[in-house]
Amino acid sequence: MADKLSSTQRERALGGLNGWVYDEAGDAISHVFKFKDFSEAFAFMTRVALAAESAGHHPEWSNSYNRVTIVLTTHDAGGLTTKDMALAKVIDTILV
Amino acid sequence: MADKLSSTQRERALGGLNGWVYDEAGDAISHVFKFKDFSEAFAFMTRVALAAESAGHHPEWSNSYNRVTIVLTTHDAGGLTTKDMALAKVIDTILV
Repeated sequence: MADKLSSTQRERALGGLNGWVYDEAGDAISHVFKFKDFSEAFAFMTRVALAAESAGHHPEWSNSYNRVTIVLTTHDAGGLTTKDMALAKVIDTILV
Repeated sequence: MADKLSSTQRERALGGLNGWVYDEAGDAISHVFKFKDFSEAFAFMTRVALAAESAGHHPEWSNSYNRVTIVLTTHDAGGLTTKDMALAKVIDTILV
């Protein structure tokens, strides 16, 4: 099982990500992505789903038309771990 | 543009659906679906996405691992319309 990140580890990892916001209450990171329309948003979601399944680590996420909100945390560990940061990095890569 | 349903129309339509709950505050209907795992949940979401795009009417929905929560309402009309009931019916059909 992945260990929770220290605040130092977290800040360092967040610095390498693009636009993710730390939520202290949930010990989670989140990002709201906006697209042209639903089709483009769901295409992105499909790529994220494949990456998540491949990583064995899944987001909590929601979608409303062209907007996708992704929240990452590791419930088993009770907070943010390297699994979350790794998945966020992959999601960032999808959008490049 | 679709017109808002009257309470009589809504009750009649809800009676033809499977497990959808009316939310008075949002004038919306919602349903929580549970699956075996993420893969099964996302397969369902993909079918719902295709149906929604085809109908030109999209859900507000969220996913957490094997759980998918779908909320349907018609923002343009300020509440439930036949579009929501029709999409709910298609979603029910996906699960048969």
